[in-house]
Amino acid sequence: MVEKIGFIGTGVMGTSMIKNLLKANYQVTVYNRTQAHAQAAIDAGATWAYTPAAVTRVSDVIITMVGFPQDVEEVYFGKHGIFSVVKSGQTLIDMTTSKPSLAKKIFATAVRKGINSLDAPVSGGDIGAQKGELTIMVGGSQGVFAKMLPIFHAMGKDVNIFGGAGSGQSTKMANQIMIAGTMTGLTEMLVYAKKANLDVEKVLKTVGGGSATNWSLSNYGPRILAGDYTPGFFAKHFLKDLRIALDEAKAMDLDLPATQRAEELYQQLVEVKKLGDDGTQALVKLWWPETKDEENK
Amino acid sequence: MVEKIGFIGTGVMGTSMIKNLLKANYQVTVYNRTQAHAQAAIDAGATWAYTPAAVTRVSDVIITMVGFPQDVEEVYFGKHGIFSVVKSGQTLIDMTTSKPSLAKKIFATAVRKGINSLDAPVSGGDIGAQKGELTIMVGGSQGVFAKMLPIFHAMGKDVNIFGGAGSGQSTKMANQIMIAGTMTGLTEMLVYAKKANLDVEKVLKTVGGGSATNWSLSNYGPRILAGDYTPGFFAKHFLKDLRIALDEAKAMDLDLPATQRAEELYQQLVEVKKLGDDGTQALVKLWWPETKDEENK
Repeated sequence: MVEKIGFIGTGVMGTSMIKNLLKANYQVTVYNRTQAHAQAAIDAGATWAYTPAAVTRVSDVIITMVGFPQDVEEVYFGKHGIFSVVKSGQTLIDMTTSKPSLAKKIFATAVRKGINSLDAPVSGGDIGAQKGELTIMVGGSQGVFAKMLPIFHAMGKDVNIFGGAGSGQSTKMANQIMIAGTMTGLTEMLVYAKKANLDVEKVLKTVGGGSATNWSLSNYGPRILAGDYTPGFFAKHFLKDLRIALDEAKAMDLDLPATQRAEELYQQLVEVKKLGDDGTQALVKLWWPETKDEENK
Repeated sequence: MVEKIGFIGTGVMGTSMIKNLLKANYQVTVYNRTQAHAQAAIDAGATWAYTPAAVTRVSDVIITMVGFPQDVEEVYFGKHGIFSVVKSGQTLIDMTTSKPSLAKKIFATAVRKGINSLDAPVSGGDIGAQKGELTIMVGGSQGVFAKMLPIFHAMGKDVNIFGGAGSGQSTKMANQIMIAGTMTGLTEMLVYAKKANLDVEKVLKTVGGGSATNWSLSNYGPRILAGDYTPGFFAKHFLKDLRIALDEAKAMDLDLPATQRAEELYQQLVEVKKLGDDGTQALVKLWWPETKDEENK
């Protein structure tokens, strides 16, 4: 039975996931690029290690939850990375939302070195991570998935495997493509309603009660009207996800015009307006500039 | 108290609405461009009249539920139209989804002739109309709205006024802008998942269980996977709605890039592929041509 887990990446999501693993009586060794940000995990009972390699040396299962695909590359393939020291019997699980193609590359490298790997990105956000109720979308071998189920269930509620290496990431991309639609629709709906001088709160209630109902509307609609742009999910990370989805689509010779348009809009928000540290609901600031937060309440 | 209602437009929606008015003990006189399509309403107890003017002569309240804004124009302003014979004390209610600007024009004409008018488009589709559970979005005077409430409640459940003339139509446009997002997101999500060789049914269940949840996904997702493109709502009517929304937005100097993209996609479906009589979920046929329905099940 697995007892020793290595966990690389102690951000908002990672820290909550580590706490849930500790509660389930796993021993957890952690690494994070910025050591100070690992303090909450260490206070909760995790042990610090100075490199991804050092984490790997003492762990049966190594979980990664970092920011961008280039961070994943570094953590796995870098000088003091995971692959520099892996040994037979270990299992690697990347839970970062990253490229399906990178998941396949990690899987192929793992196979060559005689170890196991899964891609297992999540949805459910900070709240889901805290409650141990994440949705976990897994790709890889069925047998390895089955063995890792106790670990996944310490962190998540809806845990499923979708096929071979990369298919967890592909499923997460499908999820983000859907959300691109609800976020752009919600934003343009609010912008239109306000410009037409309607009582936007009343419109939100009526529209949200019928066939236009969706999670983004009921969760982000009221936050936007309250001028609350704190991140449930960073706009910069959503832009990253949309770009991965579009790159993968292009590689499959698939055109996704509406998702492409969403990417253009989030690019404006993140790279032109420099508001990537806001939540995804800040898309409305393309129409309602920040300086007008008060008047747009 | 109003007892005599005129109802112009006996399509799928109109016929169900008329039946509910009859059940509420109103006398209903009907007109429809194609008389044969009024038979179900007549069988249910409505009386036929040969022109919109003839309907208007015998009614206290005249409701219109037709197809396109040009039909609304004809019914109100045409040679044998409503306005040719209106008289003091009457109330006109256009429940067609139509242009806010046309609603304002009808209102202005009504004021000049000393009568009342409301715009009151609906959502909830054929099922909502049958059950008398439509969402009704009203624009016009508060006093007139209050007097018409018993009539609205014979047909709908969630009945609200959003402001002066045209604001019912504007609210409906906001609703359609939101749905443009859920429909394009759903479509591209399914197309991506299939191309990535995922189990699309499983993806739909997982994506639909988290923060991407929406009505279009849970209602149209399974229909698309079953190859069922019968209309809950005609693609051609949705294209009309998106064009009205974009025209109104343009008139307000407002750019809605994602809604614009949705309009382009539905234009392809309706005007290039000639599939306007399919339901809105047929958008997926831009990627999965009709001849492949079977293989895409």
